[in-house]
Amino acid sequence: MKGKELLLTPGPVQVPWSVALAGARPFPHHRSQDFNELLRSIDHKLKQVFRTEGTILYFAASGTGAMEACMVNLMRPGEQAIVVAGGKFGERWDELAQAFGIEAHVLAVPWGEAVRPEELAELLAQHPQARTVFTALFETSTATAYDIEALAQVCRTAGALLVVDAISGLGAIPLETDAWGVDVVVGASHKALQTPPGLSFVALSSERAWQQVERAGMASYYWDFRRAKEKLFFTPYTPAVSLLVQLNESLIGLLAEGLECIRARYERYARATRAAAQALGLEVFSHRPGAVCTALQMPPNVDATQVVELLRERYGIWVAGGQQQLKGQIIRIAHVGDITPQELIGTLGVLELVLRELGYSCRLGAGVAQALTVLEDAGPTPATASDGGK
Amino acid sequence: MKGKELLLTPGPVQVPWSVALAGARPFPHHRSQDFNELLRSIDHKLKQVFRTEGTILYFAASGTGAMEACMVNLMRPGEQAIVVAGGKFGERWDELAQAFGIEAHVLAVPWGEAVRPEELAELLAQHPQARTVFTALFETSTATAYDIEALAQVCRTAGALLVVDAISGLGAIPLETDAWGVDVVVGASHKALQTPPGLSFVALSSERAWQQVERAGMASYYWDFRRAKEKLFFTPYTPAVSLLVQLNESLIGLLAEGLECIRARYERYARATRAAAQALGLEVFSHRPGAVCTALQMPPNVDATQVVELLRERYGIWVAGGQQQLKGQIIRIAHVGDITPQELIGTLGVLELVLRELGYSCRLGAGVAQALTVLEDAGPTPATASDGGK
Repeated sequence: MKGKELLLTPGPVQVPWSVALAGARPFPHHRSQDFNELLRSIDHKLKQVFRTEGTILYFAASGTGAMEACMVNLMRPGEQAIVVAGGKFGERWDELAQAFGIEAHVLAVPWGEAVRPEELAELLAQHPQARTVFTALFETSTATAYDIEALAQVCRTAGALLVVDAISGLGAIPLETDAWGVDVVVGASHKALQTPPGLSFVALSSERAWQQVERAGMASYYWDFRRAKEKLFFTPYTPAVSLLVQLNESLIGLLAEGLECIRARYERYARATRAAAQALGLEVFSHRPGAVCTALQMPPNVDATQVVELLRERYGIWVAGGQQQLKGQIIRIAHVGDITPQELIGTLGVLELVLRELGYSCRLGAGVAQALTVLEDAGPTPATASDGGK
Repeated sequence: MKGKELLLTPGPVQVPWSVALAGARPFPHHRSQDFNELLRSIDHKLKQVFRTEGTILYFAASGTGAMEACMVNLMRPGEQAIVVAGGKFGERWDELAQAFGIEAHVLAVPWGEAVRPEELAELLAQHPQARTVFTALFETSTATAYDIEALAQVCRTAGALLVVDAISGLGAIPLETDAWGVDVVVGASHKALQTPPGLSFVALSSERAWQQVERAGMASYYWDFRRAKEKLFFTPYTPAVSLLVQLNESLIGLLAEGLECIRARYERYARATRAAAQALGLEVFSHRPGAVCTALQMPPNVDATQVVELLRERYGIWVAGGQQQLKGQIIRIAHVGDITPQELIGTLGVLELVLRELGYSCRLGAGVAQALTVLEDAGPTPATASDGGK
């Protein structure tokens, strides 16, 4: 770290100071009553974020680990599944399926578009043996939000189990796990939960999810859901205790600010970013954008990779570029994490400087003015989570 | 955490203040040059601890995850292996083998004894199809160190691959990975590396280890060694960056103090603890103790569980009890981590108070006097790692 930096990548994100400092605190032994109480307290709060009364399992692993855990606990080799792939993270479900010998029928969604529920219904009708559907809530690589409520409805009608990767979306994109009948949801610490990476979660909300675990049960040990449930609030193996202490601190702050209020803030930032983009003549890449991050298509003669590099090198601002076929095409600016209105506006401002440096013609301040207008219309911005956590 | 506590459990351990505070620092994005440099720098230092020039793979997971990674990368279902089981962690290898359909021939070592190399040679001769041996370096549940040099010699002679769980032993028990020809070594952050839990490592030191990975390759994704090697110094999925920042800080301190010097300190503490035990009429449980922790057999009329509880409740000192059949029989006092001579002596002192409170008759100060004698004979105790890290 060479100087002051601002992390506006869609994970890891800016961690509130109270959460950062909690990482330096002494932590309880993981077989203690104190730890048990800590995890129960986390669980009570995290269920409000997951919107479930089901069971949340905790893994010392990053998000991909929890995705793998779903695959090995819910499927058997040779079984069929449906995978919604509209970007790099949807494709990860497919790669996992392949790695574990699952026959995945891929619902290939054009990058930047949201999956259409009727297409899922059609694919489920075509493959009556495929009764497990894997999808993302927010496809981070294209900055596109999926309509999980509609997909859950389709799955319920077809008698299929729905598994949602909400790693980046959790807490930022509407998700009513229990109310919508989403069976399994994957989350992680380092996106809207504003904690350093290294923790992931699997929420099992339905009885039939557990029935499928009982029936399936591919070889597993570290990921074994049944073992994890037996040792609930202790976890079977040594947990990442210091990260859990930080997560607890973060959840205290998030709930103090209010989850609705936070989502409204993310959405306000996303709207402001889109307004700035429009004023600068930039296209929003996604057809169904969401509040985790916004993907902006760079003009034809501007290399997005250079935009990302200049923002970082000149201004210490980390935004993400495009992945795979979108490399060089888009930049992605995160809205989740501990970001103030000043940081958003400042970033949009220096983006103008960078674009002009790369030869793109735009009137200085034009984007910022529109972003400010969105913020003004939304009324005074409430305190951020780091204040709430005090 | 109700007050000041001292963690003398064999993992997690006392984290030096410099390492704790590093957990609060801003951390680099995991796809940055800064991160790449951080991991290269960690790797350079960690290789000195592992004593290998081979490849170290990094996982966001606790130690059991890295053990599972070895099983799925080195074996195929239906294959045979040999598992040395002289305690809970040896048995974990057996449980992993069972979970993944490996036919494990278990070398059952009486708890508290070290595996005898000739017994391993015999078992290898009996099962010529079993050419992979899984063992621990230090069996934490019985506080027993294994002679890996001799076991490696046996394996080399038999043409078998040796996989060593050094999770608790790494940095505390002699292990010359390359010089002894140990093929694969598993480590973790939260023992002698003095970092919070959540990171684990697999060091592959030999060409034939990689050949076995190429040949075997059970279904895996998160644990895939080949993928991890391709993305070396970045890791394939989001790493636990803040924990890696802490690990780096810890390794700086450990190398500044000197690894030999640190091991000498742990051994001095272990000797002092054994001397105190003898003076108090307590038996050392293990026949081949090591410097990670010392297991003390409690007198027949003293419940070890009560000793552990009283130390914790009255004095805020966390030592471990026995696991499985040793529950209620032994206590285990760790020597690894950031522990000062004062903390060791103080703990041995209040242990006398606790034993007397539970009806055991011993002369107050008798154990402490012997421990002090050991420290005095060893000469002035050098600074601990937390000072070295400044």
